[in-house]
Amino acid sequence: MTVGTLVLLRHGESTWNAENLFTGWVDVPLSEKGTTEARRGGELLRETGVLPDVLHTSLLRRAITTANIALDGADRHWIPVRRDWRLNERHYGALQGKNKKQTLDEYGEEQFMLWRRSYDTPPPEIEPTDEFSQEGDPRYADLGADMPRTECLKDVVARLLPYWENAIVPDLRAGRTVLVAAHGNSLRALVKHLDGISDEEIAGLNIPTGIPLRYDLDEQLAPTNPGGTYLDPDAAASAAAAVANQGR
Amino acid sequence: MTVGTLVLLRHGESTWNAENLFTGWVDVPLSEKGTTEARRGGELLRETGVLPDVLHTSLLRRAITTANIALDGADRHWIPVRRDWRLNERHYGALQGKNKKQTLDEYGEEQFMLWRRSYDTPPPEIEPTDEFSQEGDPRYADLGADMPRTECLKDVVARLLPYWENAIVPDLRAGRTVLVAAHGNSLRALVKHLDGISDEEIAGLNIPTGIPLRYDLDEQLAPTNPGGTYLDPDAAASAAAAVANQGR
Repeated sequence: MTVGTLVLLRHGESTWNAENLFTGWVDVPLSEKGTTEARRGGELLRETGVLPDVLHTSLLRRAITTANIALDGADRHWIPVRRDWRLNERHYGALQGKNKKQTLDEYGEEQFMLWRRSYDTPPPEIEPTDEFSQEGDPRYADLGADMPRTECLKDVVARLLPYWENAIVPDLRAGRTVLVAAHGNSLRALVKHLDGISDEEIAGLNIPTGIPLRYDLDEQLAPTNPGGTYLDPDAAASAAAAVANQGR
Repeated sequence: MTVGTLVLLRHGESTWNAENLFTGWVDVPLSEKGTTEARRGGELLRETGVLPDVLHTSLLRRAITTANIALDGADRHWIPVRRDWRLNERHYGALQGKNKKQTLDEYGEEQFMLWRRSYDTPPPEIEPTDEFSQEGDPRYADLGADMPRTECLKDVVARLLPYWENAIVPDLRAGRTVLVAAHGNSLRALVKHLDGISDEEIAGLNIPTGIPLRYDLDEQLAPTNPGGTYLDPDAAASAAAAVANQGR
């Protein structure tokens, strides 16, 4: 029996995605294309009748704006909202603000892929004085020692799961349809947990932008549809292939 | 001593404001002009350093979108949000969807002004089958007997004050800067309470759209700046005069 429906939505293209820069916690806006993707996400929710009862977002505007646009399009702009840093994108450390292609050329394929896709090797920490550091940002004022200065995917899993357990699961157990609007790596961390994907295999998993991914969860919060169901499967398949080629 | 800062923001022009229709609970979007007003509201928050820590909105998209745009412009898109029907615009009953000028011509000046500005005379109730009724709207599914079918300003005061006491006051007492993004009449109801305006005098008070209105509140939650302070006083003065002439 399904107890709750979880809908994952990765934000549309940001201006820095378009410029091929490592973004992480830098709070850049959606590009025009990203805005269009968010609108399409809302249309898919509406067309398929997957109507969220509650929204959880990160503290970053590319996820927040994507959710705002998609929910407005699905006539669900009025639902309750919770935001938390634990849904943020992976902190990319000293790579934040750097060009992906230049980083690849400078450090070579092996180091580049280690930082991008290894489970437990974070990039170097960002300096507090770096222009792309979040040091002193008021939205993170209460984090204290939890404030990351770089993260690998393993770190994202560790900081995401308490929010999953304490904030998202109670909504699901109440029978709500829960929309999580977040990021490539925070959603990979969540999917890894939901589908029981190994540390090695998660490297190969890409979640396309702007296409809602629905999970129907049973009493044990295991998916009755393992891997989830994209609301536009054809678009998801071609988009996933494109993401895998980023940085080339 | 100031314990909290309250910022009131009336939504920018909606498509139905532009068409001179009674709107009430009908959930219409912002016009282009309304979007521009919302952006200006955000600039004013940023320029004056009045930075909200928490947002309260109605369940209507013209208030929600105004807040989203203004907060994004002030770099405060990430703050916590609460939404509640008690912040909605006055329910305009059977007048919802009707042209203001035609209503004035049909019913005459006296009846028109009674419906628009008397404290305790609501318009006729809307029929549940009326195309502009909110009967069956999922966002109001839990309201039961609280669901209005028409309201006068006195009714708005009565349904707003419990939310003020239970949801907004606790945020103010915690020392937060609270943004309330709402509507002409729900904000008039709140200002009536804050400034102790009489049932008669409230008829003459208009709140302009898109210009944040700041109240600094003391321990008794009385304004230390009675009447509040518009973040752009000149624009507020000329806009208030224009609102008073609506429907002419």
